[in-house]
Amino acid sequence: MSFNTFGKFFRFTTWGESHGPAIGCVVDGCPPNIPISEKEIQIDMDKRRPGQSKFTTQRKESDKVTILSGVFEGKTTGTPISMIIYNEDKRSRDYETIKDKFRPGHADYTYFKKYGIRDYRGGGRQSARETASRVAAGAIAKKVLKEIIGKKLNIVGAVVQLGVMGCDRDKWSDLEIRKNPFFCPDKSSVKTWEKYLLNVRKSGSSCGAVIELRAKGVPIGLGAPIYSKLDADIASALMSINAVKGVNIGEGMNAAYLSGEENSDEIRGKSGKIKFKTNKAGGILGGISSGQDIIASFAVKPTSSILNSRETINKKGENTKISVKGRHDPCVGIRAVPIGEAMLACVLLDHYLMNKAQCSN
Amino acid sequence: MSFNTFGKFFRFTTWGESHGPAIGCVVDGCPPNIPISEKEIQIDMDKRRPGQSKFTTQRKESDKVTILSGVFEGKTTGTPISMIIYNEDKRSRDYETIKDKFRPGHADYTYFKKYGIRDYRGGGRQSARETASRVAAGAIAKKVLKEIIGKKLNIVGAVVQLGVMGCDRDKWSDLEIRKNPFFCPDKSSVKTWEKYLLNVRKSGSSCGAVIELRAKGVPIGLGAPIYSKLDADIASALMSINAVKGVNIGEGMNAAYLSGEENSDEIRGKSGKIKFKTNKAGGILGGISSGQDIIASFAVKPTSSILNSRETINKKGENTKISVKGRHDPCVGIRAVPIGEAMLACVLLDHYLMNKAQCSN
Amino acid sequence: MSFNTFGKFFRFTTWGESHGPAIGCVVDGCPPNIPISEKEIQIDMDKRRPGQSKFTTQRKESDKVTILSGVFEGKTTGTPISMIIYNEDKRSRDYETIKDKFRPGHADYTYFKKYGIRDYRGGGRQSARETASRVAAGAIAKKVLKEIIGKKLNIVGAVVQLGVMGCDRDKWSDLEIRKNPFFCPDKSSVKTWEKYLLNVRKSGSSCGAVIELRAKGVPIGLGAPIYSKLDADIASALMSINAVKGVNIGEGMNAAYLSGEENSDEIRGKSGKIKFKTNKAGGILGGISSGQDIIASFAVKPTSSILNSRETINKKGENTKISVKGRHDPCVGIRAVPIGEAMLACVLLDHYLMNKAQCSN
Amino acid sequence: MSFNTFGKFFRFTTWGESHGPAIGCVVDGCPPNIPISEKEIQIDMDKRRPGQSKFTTQRKESDKVTILSGVFEGKTTGTPISMIIYNEDKRSRDYETIKDKFRPGHADYTYFKKYGIRDYRGGGRQSARETASRVAAGAIAKKVLKEIIGKKLNIVGAVVQLGVMGCDRDKWSDLEIRKNPFFCPDKSSVKTWEKYLLNVRKSGSSCGAVIELRAKGVPIGLGAPIYSKLDADIASALMSINAVKGVNIGEGMNAAYLSGEENSDEIRGKSGKIKFKTNKAGGILGGISSGQDIIASFAVKPTSSILNSRETINKKGENTKISVKGRHDPCVGIRAVPIGEAMLACVLLDHYLMNKAQCSN
Repeated sequence: MSFNTFGKFFRFTTWGESHGPAIGCVVDGCPPNIPISEKEIQIDMDKRRPGQSKFTTQRKESDKVTILSGVFEGKTTGTPISMIIYNEDKRSRDYETIKDKFRPGHADYTYFKKYGIRDYRGGGRQSARETASRVAAGAIAKKVLKEIIGKKLNIVGAVVQLGVMGCDRDKWSDLEIRKNPFFCPDKSSVKTWEKYLLNVRKSGSSCGAVIELRAKGVPIGLGAPIYSKLDADIASALMSINAVKGVNIGEGMNAAYLSGEENSDEIRGKSGKIKFKTNKAGGILGGISSGQDIIASFAVKPTSSILNSRETINKKGENTKISVKGRHDPCVGIRAVPIGEAMLACVLLDHYLMNKAQCSN
Repeated sequence: MSFNTFGKFFRFTTWGESHGPAIGCVVDGCPPNIPISEKEIQIDMDKRRPGQSKFTTQRKESDKVTILSGVFEGKTTGTPISMIIYNEDKRSRDYETIKDKFRPGHADYTYFKKYGIRDYRGGGRQSARETASRVAAGAIAKKVLKEIIGKKLNIVGAVVQLGVMGCDRDKWSDLEIRKNPFFCPDKSSVKTWEKYLLNVRKSGSSCGAVIELRAKGVPIGLGAPIYSKLDADIASALMSINAVKGVNIGEGMNAAYLSGEENSDEIRGKSGKIKFKTNKAGGILGGISSGQDIIASFAVKPTSSILNSRETINKKGENTKISVKGRHDPCVGIRAVPIGEAMLACVLLDHYLMNKAQCSN
Repeated sequence: MSFNTFGKFFRFTTWGESHGPAIGCVVDGCPPNIPISEKEIQIDMDKRRPGQSKFTTQRKESDKVTILSGVFEGKTTGTPISMIIYNEDKRSRDYETIKDKFRPGHADYTYFKKYGIRDYRGGGRQSARETASRVAAGAIAKKVLKEIIGKKLNIVGAVVQLGVMGCDRDKWSDLEIRKNPFFCPDKSSVKTWEKYLLNVRKSGSSCGAVIELRAKGVPIGLGAPIYSKLDADIASALMSINAVKGVNIGEGMNAAYLSGEENSDEIRGKSGKIKFKTNKAGGILGGISSGQDIIASFAVKPTSSILNSRETINKKGENTKISVKGRHDPCVGIRAVPIGEAMLACVLLDHYLMNKAQCSN
Repeated sequence: MSFNTFGKFFRFTTWGESHGPAIGCVVDGCPPNIPISEKEIQIDMDKRRPGQSKFTTQRKESDKVTILSGVFEGKTTGTPISMIIYNEDKRSRDYETIKDKFRPGHADYTYFKKYGIRDYRGGGRQSARETASRVAAGAIAKKVLKEIIGKKLNIVGAVVQLGVMGCDRDKWSDLEIRKNPFFCPDKSSVKTWEKYLLNVRKSGSSCGAVIELRAKGVPIGLGAPIYSKLDADIASALMSINAVKGVNIGEGMNAAYLSGEENSDEIRGKSGKIKFKTNKAGGILGGISSGQDIIASFAVKPTSSILNSRETINKKGENTKISVKGRHDPCVGIRAVPIGEAMLACVLLDHYLMNKAQCSN
């Protein structure tokens, strides 16, 4: 069972609701003797933190992470690392208007039907606020990977499509990603995207996004066929993120359109080194990493809470309408970038440890 | 850990290599007192069985399933159900020509690098032959679901895209799917597809496919947030199938292009009944089934083993070429239809049991 | 994997070290709509709380539990319940004298050899302080069981042997257990035990104990053969408690001395009711509860930290001596009673939910 | 969940009923490149095989094990190892006399109440025949351990008490164990035991036994606190064996009688080597192996099926009597020796792999 726990060997369990006193997670299975500090984790937290630009949610949260256990004198001890993040912006809004309505596109209806009870404040457990805990766990995973594998391991994500607007993926720049508020990897697209998203916001609507993740320096051999294939675990990890509806590995859905010649990455050897001529597979063959870059992408649906009025029902089954008051978040997909990176880091570390157990001597 | 085991509550463990004496699986967690027979399971096995048309692999296997345990006097007993399928077409081909080469697009290279050893005969464990075991497990899952939930529950899959050829999904007919060798749901596309695929085969190449799965009659409330979300588990299940590179739930990757208005399914109530106006979400909200049809699709890459010569290396790292002799399978995606159905059935039963434990009284 | 997580369906993950800022646990898989309050949980916490009599450790902790998530308007929501207990008595003792020494009978040496690092303050993670989290989780399990099964379900533990001093188990009184500082079930033994333990303490030594747990009103059918047998899971649960070295179910080790006639509990039926003539099996047959009282007992070894000097080594491998200064805890076994009850409650609820999933209709 | 699966990293899933066509198991997580043959496994199978002396069951089974997958050219490949053992002695006895009766001391009643159905032939799934699969899995575990750790690792079990008859554990001889039909380690007790057991058998009764397991050469650091402690996992493993009612680690239940001085094993260092003065802890401190010999013992209850008539009920709840016809097995505990060894080997390998993943660099 793994209701609120992710991972097999490197595992984290998240807890907390949007408007409860706090959220947090417990990381278990972290190797000992890894130097780690709250400060390092906070860097990743800040990438996901709300309210950083006018293009994302305006909720005010400092998202300060505190380590409660598992780290002693600056190093992990091999025991569980408990982290807590207090909820600050939980002002008593007028939830009366929405507490009995099911917001379309949200999980209000399904949570209520499943559990017979739900914390309606800000979406409760279904809120994307839970993902802050993932980012904290992912920051630890990244640090462990760097300590064990070395600096060459690098995981970077970017928004490669914003609503109907694409970008030139060949112009991908890690540096550029950190510079613009969209995590856009192609400098030449930033201006257009800005204009587009402002329009979306003004119109009271929202748009989706596609996020691409690239992991360089991943060792060969990660992934445990058949039912812990690396790609299957990445798919599960990314699909578990709020609002994600599709996951691709390498060419992904597009692979259906290719011919056998186009799709299978030919291999060449030269003075003891192996080189694939292409990377349609996204760095994974038969569920096992091939040493090529891991490429995965996922689609985030448009924000469901918009200014424009939507039809729905209330708890009694009566027809009613609903709309968001004040400012809204025109594209929840943007903030999914650090979350995707965190999840990929956790999957890679999990498989690294698994592989060490089974296949190393 | 779940190397070769799928599922949490309703679980199956598969074993066996393409050219070993047999393959099989052990189904654990199956509820007791469910009538089940080898004959019923065989119906599903026959849908996946190779050599049924000129469009799929010509390997000759009767794929006859034998139950070794867990069923007594025609009913399940709640103890593990072991099933075995003997490999028949394992004639001693000349594997000498390929045993030391890594077929591009296959997992030969990654298996060898991971394990330091591999059964090269027909791909060994990485062979799609393993999926026969999944179909057997899925047949049991389907039967249990029908016994518990009733006849209204129905899971059907179809090929909705064959290489570059689409079809009209609005013309979907469950009946038509069973009539043509492509599991194509749209009668008007069958002829064109046949011509297209014959050309692909003749040219010595191959093509990919997109399979869509539809599950009707699924109860509300299946799916355990956060890390056992129904869609996350479906994504993992489908991505674990050989050659799958992308998974969509509902609108999937396409959701990125939609506006908030287009994408969020509005809800209407009428005389105590609830109706969603659309089903962009594919029947899953917040990882929990909403009572709408579950819609999932996945892309299968083109067959990697083709007649046309491909560049690769051998175990020594030397450059060489490889190609398939004799007849080849122009589209492995076709036979993925019953496998996808089986996996979806297993996920749904798994979550049905989980939900019963946690949320029923 | 389950490093710091206990249970399969009803699961709790504990975290925290003896002298860190706090300890706590996350309970996952708890059914929704169960009324629960911090006050109820505190009742059990207080049973385990240190410093309540001169016979147990003098550490000052209020052990106040705070719920951080998973409970809304007084009821469980089906989402994870996070609980935190702040460490209060973590005054900066002079750990210098023991930080580099391995206390015999403790896990100082093995932790250090395994992890290469350890939090030496008060034993760190190996401290019995971790069990406070178990008691909190167990309090929830008990409440859920009572809500679902009803008042007839009752779990009571007692110390049935204190060092070399036994008691008359036939005089077991639930009422008496709550009245004396030893959780002794037999009133006539209390005075003698008091005298005995005062002597043990005065002599600077310590003694072990045997705790017996009795669960009444347990439904028939709990336990999942073969590897989740109810008795196997109880054995694992109890053996995981600090300092426990042996576990018995029913007659336990004593069963070896009995004849087949003496040991197998004969069954009689009378007007539709079934009655076992004896309960040598401790209420479990083939790993499944029989409806009889569940009887389990476990032995706790004598406190390893005593006033009398003991030989040991330091981190450098040099020979040295060690002894406790000030007051010591002459019998850690006494406080194991509420912990044992908590673990048994968690196992029973876990199996109740499992059985509901698999075997109910 | 782990209904019929044992282990976390090195895992085996068993299946099969006493009188079905076959029994078997699937071993998953076995490291690759380990030489293994059916012949080696058979050696352990033969130790457990029935009908080898007049003191055990007379069922005729050759217990020949066949490997169906996971081994290629004599070596493990890292893929699941499926093994099958056909049932030979399943002659159609007259089960009519017992099919509707619940044998006291057996799981007939609880299986029937839990599942509502049971395979009554020879006990079905509850039969100790299932343990043959464990021995097969254990044989693989032992081989892997020897290959990885080396020859110094040695796991030996013996019967140290037969009913009311003890033996001198200080005279333990590994050689002697293999020479007598009781796995008795003390030559001087064999004669007396023989006389005793013949008497038990003649009287139509049965007796229990205590088995002690000793593992030498176990590396320091195995065991994952808190809920995968090595002793907790051993306890679960041994308690899962049919008819086991008690498990001790080191001094076990006896630890309750000892003083702190007697029980805590003092440590001495000498020229870089560490030595414990005693081994009361059974080689495990805080759930982690200390490098000392692992000592575990467990009690097997007397055979429940005896010649002497016992009172019971039938499926209708009516009072009746039951007794075994023909020859019976006076002490099922004897054949538990190789099963205990197998389970201990599996636990040690499981923890070895876990530890390698988490704590090695």
